[in-house]
Amino acid sequence: MGLNSNRVDDFFSHNGNTSVTTVKVSTEITMPAPEAATMEIHTVCLPPKKTTFQKLKHRLSDIFFPDDPLYGFKNQTWCKKLVLGIKSLFPICQWGLEYNLSLFRSDIISGLTIASLAIPQGISYAKLANLPPIVGLYSSFVPPLVYSVLGSSRHLAVGPVSIASLVMGTMLSGSVSPTNEPILYLQLAFTATFFAGVFHASLGLLRLGFIIDFLSKATLLGFMAGAAVIVSLQQLKGLLGIVHFTNKMQLIPVLTSVFEHKNEWSWQTIVMGFGFLFFMLTARHVSMRNPKLFWVSAAAPLTSVILSTILVFCIKSKAHGISYIGHLQKGLNPPSLNMLYFNGQHLALAIKTGIVTGMLSLTEGIAVGRTFASLKNYQVDGNKEMMAIGLMNMAGSCTSCYVTTGSFSRSAVNYNAGAQTAVSNIVLAAAVLVTLLFLMPLFYYTPNVILAAIIITAVIGLIDYQGAYKLWKVDKLDFLACMSSFFGVLFISVPLGLGIAVGVSVFKILLHVTRPNTVVLGNIPRTQIYQNLHRYKEASRVPSFLILAIESPIYFANSTYLQERMLRCIREEEERINENHESILKCVIIDMTAVTAIDTSGIDLLCELRKMLEKRSLQLVLVNPVGSVMEKLHQSNTLESFGTSSVYLTVWEAVGDISASWKPQP
Amino acid sequence: MGLNSNRVDDFFSHNGNTSVTTVKVSTEITMPAPEAATMEIHTVCLPPKKTTFQKLKHRLSDIFFPDDPLYGFKNQTWCKKLVLGIKSLFPICQWGLEYNLSLFRSDIISGLTIASLAIPQGISYAKLANLPPIVGLYSSFVPPLVYSVLGSSRHLAVGPVSIASLVMGTMLSGSVSPTNEPILYLQLAFTATFFAGVFHASLGLLRLGFIIDFLSKATLLGFMAGAAVIVSLQQLKGLLGIVHFTNKMQLIPVLTSVFEHKNEWSWQTIVMGFGFLFFMLTARHVSMRNPKLFWVSAAAPLTSVILSTILVFCIKSKAHGISYIGHLQKGLNPPSLNMLYFNGQHLALAIKTGIVTGMLSLTEGIAVGRTFASLKNYQVDGNKEMMAIGLMNMAGSCTSCYVTTGSFSRSAVNYNAGAQTAVSNIVLAAAVLVTLLFLMPLFYYTPNVILAAIIITAVIGLIDYQGAYKLWKVDKLDFLACMSSFFGVLFISVPLGLGIAVGVSVFKILLHVTRPNTVVLGNIPRTQIYQNLHRYKEASRVPSFLILAIESPIYFANSTYLQERMLRCIREEEERINENHESILKCVIIDMTAVTAIDTSGIDLLCELRKMLEKRSLQLVLVNPVGSVMEKLHQSNTLESFGTSSVYLTVWEAVGDISASWKPQP
Repeated sequence: MGLNSNRVDDFFSHNGNTSVTTVKVSTEITMPAPEAATMEIHTVCLPPKKTTFQKLKHRLSDIFFPDDPLYGFKNQTWCKKLVLGIKSLFPICQWGLEYNLSLFRSDIISGLTIASLAIPQGISYAKLANLPPIVGLYSSFVPPLVYSVLGSSRHLAVGPVSIASLVMGTMLSGSVSPTNEPILYLQLAFTATFFAGVFHASLGLLRLGFIIDFLSKATLLGFMAGAAVIVSLQQLKGLLGIVHFTNKMQLIPVLTSVFEHKNEWSWQTIVMGFGFLFFMLTARHVSMRNPKLFWVSAAAPLTSVILSTILVFCIKSKAHGISYIGHLQKGLNPPSLNMLYFNGQHLALAIKTGIVTGMLSLTEGIAVGRTFASLKNYQVDGNKEMMAIGLMNMAGSCTSCYVTTGSFSRSAVNYNAGAQTAVSNIVLAAAVLVTLLFLMPLFYYTPNVILAAIIITAVIGLIDYQGAYKLWKVDKLDFLACMSSFFGVLFISVPLGLGIAVGVSVFKILLHVTRPNTVVLGNIPRTQIYQNLHRYKEASRVPSFLILAIESPIYFANSTYLQERMLRCIREEEERINENHESILKCVIIDMTAVTAIDTSGIDLLCELRKMLEKRSLQLVLVNPVGSVMEKLHQSNTLESFGTSSVYLTVWEAVGDISASWKPQP
Repeated sequence: MGLNSNRVDDFFSHNGNTSVTTVKVSTEITMPAPEAATMEIHTVCLPPKKTTFQKLKHRLSDIFFPDDPLYGFKNQTWCKKLVLGIKSLFPICQWGLEYNLSLFRSDIISGLTIASLAIPQGISYAKLANLPPIVGLYSSFVPPLVYSVLGSSRHLAVGPVSIASLVMGTMLSGSVSPTNEPILYLQLAFTATFFAGVFHASLGLLRLGFIIDFLSKATLLGFMAGAAVIVSLQQLKGLLGIVHFTNKMQLIPVLTSVFEHKNEWSWQTIVMGFGFLFFMLTARHVSMRNPKLFWVSAAAPLTSVILSTILVFCIKSKAHGISYIGHLQKGLNPPSLNMLYFNGQHLALAIKTGIVTGMLSLTEGIAVGRTFASLKNYQVDGNKEMMAIGLMNMAGSCTSCYVTTGSFSRSAVNYNAGAQTAVSNIVLAAAVLVTLLFLMPLFYYTPNVILAAIIITAVIGLIDYQGAYKLWKVDKLDFLACMSSFFGVLFISVPLGLGIAVGVSVFKILLHVTRPNTVVLGNIPRTQIYQNLHRYKEASRVPSFLILAIESPIYFANSTYLQERMLRCIREEEERINENHESILKCVIIDMTAVTAIDTSGIDLLCELRKMLEKRSLQLVLVNPVGSVMEKLHQSNTLESFGTSSVYLTVWEAVGDISASWKPQP
């Protein structure tokens, strides 16, 4: 029991603060160390028995349904279940019934605000993907409408995004030239969008959404920064007015190309480009300093487009160096079902592009949805969102749209502008509709350089150096994943940079399992607590015992290492005992609290260790094995060879019981 | 303190068995639950500070030098260090100095015993690798000599092995035909052996030996069984006397080929083959039943060779259906340095073959060495063994030998025959020398069918169905890895089958990290112990508290899952409280003992969870975070936002302190 006089004294000196009723304790209590006769030793029991089928069922439900999504359906009538089902599949039925005028007012304002951003960005991002600019506007019309019916997030603003546009442009133009074969390129873009949608929807349907968890935030940070740098470099073509430019994306080819074609630099383009770029960056900076002025950075792109169009219109006869968009046809999205490309030599390319852009757009969309949901304290079901985004892209691919998702910058503007529901997306779609039907001729003289400036302003925000510094401070391996992603994208290629980063992240997990920590525990005096000796200076060793804690599951990947490590610990302990002339080592206790799983190699390790130690007259004791470990020890008959006197519930009980058994019986 | 009258009664009733000196305790002690004023609350401290460089150095030494191999060199004179160094590099210097006549007697017997096995097996395995039979004998001469100087294991018997021969034969004959281009094939085989040796030696030198730990025992069990079945099927060609046979290895093509060429079956070959096969299997069965009769199965192959050669010699005019080896040149290994193939179109094939056969042979050799070392209680340094096996293969590739390693069956015979040191390998080499110089003409009439029968007898032992059944009983995922390895090898291809199995094993690790267990803890009455409620029936919940334990590190791969899981636990707990009208939930405690690592995604999870719970008026408390987790919490400033009153050393202290803080202060 370990009650000593100090604690009792403490108890009495604070008597006034306790609510003790009956105490008749003398001040002199000297009680012995825990002894078997007085100490209650608890048996370590096996977990409740389950058949293999039950275990498999439990495991599968844990993998695919961790949040128990059907819990709301329990104990309901059939009619109610049907209503709940419809509301679940079409969230618009849920918030639509509670809609009112004040919500509508907020949504109109936010919808128009994001429309002012979406229209210039849509045109710019389409050029980033080497697609006709009008496709960017089509992609800001149909997808938001589909999302508003099926999506769960209230703040997600849907449309084309920079990274997916870049990746699609890169991957497709590697095999098919957008200038020489524009029809084929367009077909492949729509087909890739279709496959991206299929990919999203199947992940959502099969509840495999956890796959995107493997793209950690650190990885994405580096990836997005690298992609942002690449996108900005690509815009040097538009900013400087160069005509002949490299097809490659990477840093070195692009810089080489920029300086090789110095003769093509057009000073008018440069002046206009950098001028408006400076204007938009300033507007962005103002909004960042004062979040209430979010509309400043939201309105800046559209303002720049209007001003530059007017400028070019005025000086069009003298401004030969400045290229402009030209004719954009009026009218809504033409159907593009016939353009989907399902057989031919480029099908594999379309599928690959679809999956890569699908993965990136999904990650961004889900992350944005979750971020704003946690800010406003509502839940977003990841798998349902994936289905919504998937169906949105599938519908988009049949109506001349390319890959779209929720964009972070646009959703942030949406949030700051006070959006309440997905109706802001409907308002956005309406504004784009008006633009498509009536305002297309106004974009005739819009210079391409302004689109380049808009893109640079948009992606600059993706370079989160503060986040990278935080990673360096907190977790060096995460920082390594971030940097490998960044440099991989910058110098090798976009998909490969992402692949390298995922590899570093998985390697981190495997390294931790393959080389786990083993610590030596000591007792904190006057308590039943055993803690790491190196960390807690007050902890002290227990004579004749060596208490080790293994901090990981014991698998094939680390059993050999653990064996060597433990033998080395024992050897070093015996040397230390020899040097300090302490009582000899008699018992090795392994605290298995953190050994959360074991496999057959781990069981073999424990058996071998026990035999080795037996030959050296050392007793091996296991403490607090978790349920599954206990079960495997039992099934492999290892528990019998260890004996019940070698498995204890706590280190305290093990030390007490074994010490007592060494004392000579009177 | 929780001392109640029951325990005191127990104490007094066993008074006679204690060694208490002074007790003046009244029988009526009613003490309150632990209160802040009386209970000693320990602060959770940060681990000792280390610079990034120190941490990196510690990590690298842990990865590469877990067994501290240079510990014997500390505090020694230069002269002694030199001697220790030489003994370490050339173990023959160590045991050679203590050699005596009785050891020599044991080694001669065991050496001759394994020679009787090695000679027929060497010829057979070389045919398995599509190499001239004499190369198998060469490979039983030089490699054992090299190993006896450099190797650390006392019982390892070195020579060609079935699996590596099969894999080499498969991979090389896929591109180069051994019948049409024998010289090129031989060149590639020696080059592959050279690269295998380089692979072994570099793993050993760079202390990267832990890589082979990724081939778990379960994986290898399935792989070797599958390879054994494939090898046996291949021998149907020799057993049935078929001339035209498929090049493929897999089950279906082989069986098809066997039945397609039924007309080529030769009854004399079949009779002789199955007769001697039956004889050798019986001898093997006898030795397994009675280990003292190990020499029966060791002598059977050589006896069969002798008997069958005599038989064919006698009936050679009438036995047209039986093919025999033919002429084998006398003489020692010719040097083959000039045959090494370092540039040309097949270099990649040679390197790939070298690495795959190297990996397999290394795994078998190291596993065998460790098995016998643990039986006889001596240590074998894995990395040193790898260097020995590597140099052995590099030397072999320059002296007309192909890939060799320690074989399990031969080493078992060596062990049972009483080998004491590596001199048994020298005796083996001497016997092979005698054979090469004088006995080659005796093999002229040895029928090929006998070689097929010898191979089948040898590999039959690799099919360990008892081991597979044990895997099924103990660990289903290990069994899955075993079966995928087995069927992959049988139906797809040998390297791919191994690759699939390694993939399943790694997937097992990742699955455990991505979907960790979370358990609800309850208090075992009258103790400070908190255990899994579902497992320990006596554990009971603590009112107003929800105590969760997370059983894995918190990484990017599982942070989303953990968030959903914990929110679900909280929701279910609140529903349960509502149904049973218990006191409302006020505090959620997370036991972080088994959370052995955390990354930035995990830290974000904890922060988000805290904010979410704060909005629901729930307090979040962390208990017993390990050193590295504590450090990261501190560096990311999360510890400050949690506050010192939200981190405790044990659940007991947390519950006590927080309960006390809720009681109204008088």
